[in-house]
Amino acid sequence: MKNTLITYLLLALLVATAQAQPNNLSINRQRIQTRLLELSKFGELPNGGIGRVAYSKADQEGRAYIIGLMKKAGLNVTIDFAGNIIGRRNGQNPALKPIAFGSHIDSVPNGGNYDGPLGSISGLELIETLNENKLVTKHPLELIIFANEEGGTVGSGALIGKITPAALKSVTQSGLTIADGIRAIGGNPDSLSRVVRKKGDVAAFIELHIEQGGILMTENLQIGVVEGIVGIEHWDATIDGAANHAGTTPMNARRDALLAAAKLIVALNEVITSHEGRQVGTIGKIAAEPGAYNVIPGKVVLGVEIRDLSHDKIWMLFHEVEAKAREIAKTSETNITFVQSSIGVTPALTAKPIQDKIIRAAKAMGLSYRYMQSGAGHDAQEMAQIAPVGMIFIPSVGGISHSPKEFSKGVDIGNGANVLLHTLLAIDAE
Amino acid sequence: MKNTLITYLLLALLVATAQAQPNNLSINRQRIQTRLLELSKFGELPNGGIGRVAYSKADQEGRAYIIGLMKKAGLNVTIDFAGNIIGRRNGQNPALKPIAFGSHIDSVPNGGNYDGPLGSISGLELIETLNENKLVTKHPLELIIFANEEGGTVGSGALIGKITPAALKSVTQSGLTIADGIRAIGGNPDSLSRVVRKKGDVAAFIELHIEQGGILMTENLQIGVVEGIVGIEHWDATIDGAANHAGTTPMNARRDALLAAAKLIVALNEVITSHEGRQVGTIGKIAAEPGAYNVIPGKVVLGVEIRDLSHDKIWMLFHEVEAKAREIAKTSETNITFVQSSIGVTPALTAKPIQDKIIRAAKAMGLSYRYMQSGAGHDAQEMAQIAPVGMIFIPSVGGISHSPKEFSKGVDIGNGANVLLHTLLAIDAE
Repeated sequence: MKNTLITYLLLALLVATAQAQPNNLSINRQRIQTRLLELSKFGELPNGGIGRVAYSKADQEGRAYIIGLMKKAGLNVTIDFAGNIIGRRNGQNPALKPIAFGSHIDSVPNGGNYDGPLGSISGLELIETLNENKLVTKHPLELIIFANEEGGTVGSGALIGKITPAALKSVTQSGLTIADGIRAIGGNPDSLSRVVRKKGDVAAFIELHIEQGGILMTENLQIGVVEGIVGIEHWDATIDGAANHAGTTPMNARRDALLAAAKLIVALNEVITSHEGRQVGTIGKIAAEPGAYNVIPGKVVLGVEIRDLSHDKIWMLFHEVEAKAREIAKTSETNITFVQSSIGVTPALTAKPIQDKIIRAAKAMGLSYRYMQSGAGHDAQEMAQIAPVGMIFIPSVGGISHSPKEFSKGVDIGNGANVLLHTLLAIDAE
Repeated sequence: MKNTLITYLLLALLVATAQAQPNNLSINRQRIQTRLLELSKFGELPNGGIGRVAYSKADQEGRAYIIGLMKKAGLNVTIDFAGNIIGRRNGQNPALKPIAFGSHIDSVPNGGNYDGPLGSISGLELIETLNENKLVTKHPLELIIFANEEGGTVGSGALIGKITPAALKSVTQSGLTIADGIRAIGGNPDSLSRVVRKKGDVAAFIELHIEQGGILMTENLQIGVVEGIVGIEHWDATIDGAANHAGTTPMNARRDALLAAAKLIVALNEVITSHEGRQVGTIGKIAAEPGAYNVIPGKVVLGVEIRDLSHDKIWMLFHEVEAKAREIAKTSETNITFVQSSIGVTPALTAKPIQDKIIRAAKAMGLSYRYMQSGAGHDAQEMAQIAPVGMIFIPSVGGISHSPKEFSKGVDIGNGANVLLHTLLAIDAE
């Protein structure tokens, strides 16, 4: 009886110590890896890649899998009208706004199983770790699995009210329109206005993600502290020349739209690389008409993209490209016009106080780190419109992403999830 | 009675004079234009263009129309196994090989009604003119309406035995394979070997055609004396780089296949224009994969074409392009390979004696002329492998061809048909 009492008291002391010293908390890396593996079965392709595009059957099955885990972990799970999966855990102080974290589980058509799933499964792991350690945060917590990130951050975009009626009609990789896709995963596109959150509705948002580039790996660093997520602007450049017979039209009588387009592709590269900084510019799409060996192309359309942390710099670079285009149009006797696409993304800076907490967490664990920008778009970019956000990167082997070869090492996954956990606890402690 | 006899004798004398003096013969230009207009109804498009691709319903109807006219003109009409329409008119000396002439009536998908029909209807007009003047040539005559010229001189290619079994399987603009297309117009692809003609089987071949370029019009000349039809070689250039994320891959870590392709497009143009001569080089096709704003292209395929009267010059130019490609591949860390396409065309020189006869005919009619090369491929190019050929050009307004705007003036059509007639008579007279 006496022994039993002593044992009980010791246990109570241990629990109290654990609660009092969350600094010692650590996630279960093995569980994250097991669950990433289990999730990878939904949409697994013969080449080892993942085809779990938003709204597809594989996406729906993957969502059902993670919803099951979230419920098992005691979260109060709801699907909002945009199809986002939201798992809520109450805090000690119901008056506080929730701290949110998470990512997405949809993939590009032939992608990997880390871009999105890492942040989603690691977010769930935080809940498991808190549960196991009987820790209740002051703030309510929200694990958010955003819908359709790869198709243009649709789920997080809905949370900030930026999904237009026109966007709802666009056809996604699943074959469904966004509207029908939202219905397919339990949302309701007609009620999107009811999911919109105002500035201040969320205390903070943190996302753990793979780098999707090779900087951390090349520099042999463990944690990336994201300073901001670059803005993205897209333009369609149309070059109008004159389609003509490739045999009978002398070289000096041509108005070759493809030759002018080629010069513009080279010029864009020159403009982007002639300035200091981390800006990137890409022409990823090209279509030439009529498209036969024996006809000089009369029309070419290029898909132009420029990304940078500064909106002003993006436009400064674009205006330089435009000036080069005017010269090319003149000498090639073509007409070059640019039309800005509607799917641009505003640059988003992360919150300095959260960056500091990420660094403190990394330092406490003895991890190396660096500041970096995210060249890719993320849900955190949308969330930055309504809340202070933080973003943590871990290395991608070979810098590869959006590919079956996408891979992050177990030790890095563990590091990232632990930094996520301690960043969250530091935000909560304030 | 006496008057009747005198009238009869005078008439006989007139006929005899006409037969003795074919120099005075002239075609009926109005009839050619009427028939061109009638033929244009088959495959007429709402935009005024002609969609009479080989083997299509419109092509079959156009063929039925011209077969009817050929039979009405007394020709012995047969369809050979390749689907060529051959109208034979006996000569005075059955031991002589036939003089052939003609062209084609199939069109490109959105073409005009002169490229092909001019030589076909004018060839028929020669027969009508000879008939009306009761002239019988020494040589047998063959009016040939070649099948599927626009799809790669298939009908004339069959006459010289160059249509491969693989080519028969390729799908044409009609949706049919060449084999099925040949069946659709009354040929038999399994018996193509039986249509092959040997060198010497045809005494000569003459083709009247629109220029399809702007040289005659620009220089205000009436007749083009074609010295040769350029050779054509096609290559597919494949540029392999590395597809990667357009946001996260720094500019200096890219292996951008489209940027390398753009440099190759510019380099080809520089190579072609850096040499004296009338060679032309074109990149008319481009495909970039995966083809999204946000992915650096990993693979680009270009359709490359070079044309010249000299086979050696084509290859000299190509080797220069190859050398440039090696430099580009090295600096861009891409791999560039060229695969020659099977659909190349050997340059074909026309026969000097026939050129001289064309010039004599033009001079006799007071027409201006110049030597020129044909940048476009023609049935005459194939026929040059087995017979001496001649080719006569008339001006195309605006240099436009393969377009609904294709047009040649009535006066030029009349000139061309008369030069064709007198060239034929001069060949026959030898």
